[in-house]
Amino acid sequence: MTTLTTRPEHDIEKIAAAPAMSAPPRRHLLDLDDWTPVEMRLMLARAGEMRAMIDDPSAARLDSLRGVVLVNLFYENSTRTRVSFELAGKRLGADVINITASSSSVAKGESLHDTVCTLEALGARVVVVRSSAAGAPDLIARTIQGSVINAGDGWHAHPSQALLDLFTLERHLGSVAGRRIVILGDILHSRVARSNVWALTSMGAEVTLCGPATLLPVSAATLYTSRPTPGTKAPRCVTVESSVERALAGANAVMVLRLQRERQQAGLLPSLREYSRQYGLNEARLALARPDALVLHPGPMNEGVEIDPAIAAGPQSVIEEQVTNGVAVRMALLEALALAREER
Amino acid sequence: MTTLTTRPEHDIEKIAAAPAMSAPPRRHLLDLDDWTPVEMRLMLARAGEMRAMIDDPSAARLDSLRGVVLVNLFYENSTRTRVSFELAGKRLGADVINITASSSSVAKGESLHDTVCTLEALGARVVVVRSSAAGAPDLIARTIQGSVINAGDGWHAHPSQALLDLFTLERHLGSVAGRRIVILGDILHSRVARSNVWALTSMGAEVTLCGPATLLPVSAATLYTSRPTPGTKAPRCVTVESSVERALAGANAVMVLRLQRERQQAGLLPSLREYSRQYGLNEARLALARPDALVLHPGPMNEGVEIDPAIAAGPQSVIEEQVTNGVAVRMALLEALALAREER
Amino acid sequence: MTTLTTRPEHDIEKIAAAPAMSAPPRRHLLDLDDWTPVEMRLMLARAGEMRAMIDDPSAARLDSLRGVVLVNLFYENSTRTRVSFELAGKRLGADVINITASSSSVAKGESLHDTVCTLEALGARVVVVRSSAAGAPDLIARTIQGSVINAGDGWHAHPSQALLDLFTLERHLGSVAGRRIVILGDILHSRVARSNVWALTSMGAEVTLCGPATLLPVSAATLYTSRPTPGTKAPRCVTVESSVERALAGANAVMVLRLQRERQQAGLLPSLREYSRQYGLNEARLALARPDALVLHPGPMNEGVEIDPAIAAGPQSVIEEQVTNGVAVRMALLEALALAREER
Repeated sequence: MTTLTTRPEHDIEKIAAAPAMSAPPRRHLLDLDDWTPVEMRLMLARAGEMRAMIDDPSAARLDSLRGVVLVNLFYENSTRTRVSFELAGKRLGADVINITASSSSVAKGESLHDTVCTLEALGARVVVVRSSAAGAPDLIARTIQGSVINAGDGWHAHPSQALLDLFTLERHLGSVAGRRIVILGDILHSRVARSNVWALTSMGAEVTLCGPATLLPVSAATLYTSRPTPGTKAPRCVTVESSVERALAGANAVMVLRLQRERQQAGLLPSLREYSRQYGLNEARLALARPDALVLHPGPMNEGVEIDPAIAAGPQSVIEEQVTNGVAVRMALLEALALAREER
Repeated sequence: MTTLTTRPEHDIEKIAAAPAMSAPPRRHLLDLDDWTPVEMRLMLARAGEMRAMIDDPSAARLDSLRGVVLVNLFYENSTRTRVSFELAGKRLGADVINITASSSSVAKGESLHDTVCTLEALGARVVVVRSSAAGAPDLIARTIQGSVINAGDGWHAHPSQALLDLFTLERHLGSVAGRRIVILGDILHSRVARSNVWALTSMGAEVTLCGPATLLPVSAATLYTSRPTPGTKAPRCVTVESSVERALAGANAVMVLRLQRERQQAGLLPSLREYSRQYGLNEARLALARPDALVLHPGPMNEGVEIDPAIAAGPQSVIEEQVTNGVAVRMALLEALALAREER
Repeated sequence: MTTLTTRPEHDIEKIAAAPAMSAPPRRHLLDLDDWTPVEMRLMLARAGEMRAMIDDPSAARLDSLRGVVLVNLFYENSTRTRVSFELAGKRLGADVINITASSSSVAKGESLHDTVCTLEALGARVVVVRSSAAGAPDLIARTIQGSVINAGDGWHAHPSQALLDLFTLERHLGSVAGRRIVILGDILHSRVARSNVWALTSMGAEVTLCGPATLLPVSAATLYTSRPTPGTKAPRCVTVESSVERALAGANAVMVLRLQRERQQAGLLPSLREYSRQYGLNEARLALARPDALVLHPGPMNEGVEIDPAIAAGPQSVIEEQVTNGVAVRMALLEALALAREER
């Protein structure tokens, strides 16, 4: 295993103790590469309050987004992310509008720019967009008066997923600073992995990217280590490792990625079975990690391919908790972005 | 006509007079084969109150499901059942989420079990499922913490439809006990027929199944008569009859089934025209039944095939009323199942 | 340019000064050919109040449609119109149900009549319908107890679009009486053009229809001029002109139509490029109109085909404002139609 950066002890301490001071209000969520640890800590704290409200059925409903129009603009299929944003919006009192590509004017050839201008003119204050085109949310952010949230764009980024993963990890591990997190699987096609590296390394975690060589860009670590954490200048700690056994040894958590079957046209894998045998997370492999290591998966899972069903349902799995935390994290996000706009 | 069971006079009297005592709270609605007459009577009584609220525009909105997340998980196309559950949920104050197979992660190959676990983790308390796979709701019921409602599974069951049919019949006939109800058409492929037999015979009705021999399982009656009504041990009264004239003679109600054109691949019918001529409900045939006999149809209708348009729109038809009653019955169901969960 | 009617000076004065007296309550919106100027003026006035409410975030939410079920029945794809009605309904407190053809029982062959009867039985008070079949809303109006709104039917009519166009024009021009409005493009296939001619000429505007001869019915003007404005008997002022330069000279507004690419199967155009060169609205052509001439487009635009992107985003464009006004106009419409029903 080649560690491309050494662990920056003192910086981690600083990050973990970062005071909850107010950050400049942010209007969009495009990716997490430019978020400071302080911003992330504040968002996670608010998400914690949202989670407590979700757990308490007697809690009064928040109405902080009453009258706000939230549009879910989903150009790709999705269950959990779309419903998660829809419920988060409704719990805050927003009017939620769902638009899928198949029943919209996209079929008439309308440009993304015009679609978004139209949505704003209709009254949309927050547009949550999922697209197969990397960069689509950035394009929207250039013209929109309101807020845009990237709910997954191509192979690029999925920042709300990374925030909910971070939130889930910290509920169990305390701070992730100094913890070793393995991201296992098809790194090449994974927007989840990309956003997670920014989030985790910002908070001082040591991230190991592990997968078959054909699904693991050689330059992966360099990309991240060349950009220090905003606000702290702390270097990011990312390593690349093709041996799953070496990667898992002593890990605090394993984040298993979905094998994007629909993106395996290029002959990068000999077969699913081969992949499963060599990189699937099974009992024997998980035993190499710390005994209390957490298992995460962004879903939907290919059970029996990248993860053993017994592990997915086992005591170390926090996969279902990730989903519940996702609603809380998205409530905190929606509230912060919508309020930021009003303060301008 | 071969009557497989004789009419059990005294049992019917008992059933009709069953006291409104409290039944153990039921969490799921999978089918009606295990419902006692008392349970059904209680549900119908509450549906009657819901129907009165629907009819009174000045009635205050019920908020008994405020904060409850209801998911409509529809793997098959539907207008009336999906909208019926959506409106029933909204009238009770629930947050309703619609998921169709075409725009969801089902397209990514996620298993039904994982989809439901995800929905629960997102906050769903009631999942209403329609699926082409018989048994899908039962599968869900095994793992779900909340409630599952079968909104139609393959050829198996459609219990909320049967409850609304029963409710509609009793609003006109008083108790169905001792009344003769004909179910006419494609019995073989009909989940509506199956659930209706359980419901009607439990309440003491005499049910005649009528259709062409290729669409009428020979063992149909035996299936039902071999399982007495729960809670009363009363035998069920079901007969099978291939002559539509003999079946209709003296009937109190005719439930016409939709000819499932999309399920007629197997060459079970010579032609639609032939079917219509031999089994379609027309004026001459309806005249064989009692003069005040009711006409029901679960919809959507193939007018001119299984039913004459004039009858569908005629004075004996209660087809539109069935739809309105469906909302009331589903309000009662949703309320009961959601509250049952809280009592656990 | 052949003016088929002369400008009726005195009538225009009468129309512009029409008192805001109460019109008989109208239950449906099918097209605008039978609307009196007084009715239109009243609707626009109410839309102005709705627009003021939209612009004031502190305004209390109207609840005039609380408990009313509004169904969006869209047999054709749409973003802006569907979302516009959905938001208009929600802002008034209605329960909004969306039905698209692809996931409904239409796929099972249910007739439009039966679908609408079912929706009413489910509780729908207002059905907003978009269909590729001209006349579908009229068919519905014959049986529905509640209200039907035509949200676009084939090449026939799109009256709520015409009302929002009129509203937008009058916010900038004051009354349109005596103003010259050019409708430019594919007149033949445009339901937007048809409804706009009724609306604009009723209010005393002079309308010029302009497009290539193959997309411009020769009888276009006669159709309108043969039917005087209801309530005033004023003749309608419509001219047909195939030269875009002559049409634009001195115009107060240009309404550019979407080139319906999906309807150009019949070889009516040599090529998109040819169309764009000869009829596309560019800077040079717009300069022929009055310096403050407004530019409208119903959307979605084919930018670079029928309109230059710089013009669409330029200072004379009110295209985005049309979208916002659409929500206000539809709020006024929904309120008026739903209340009309109660008064019966």
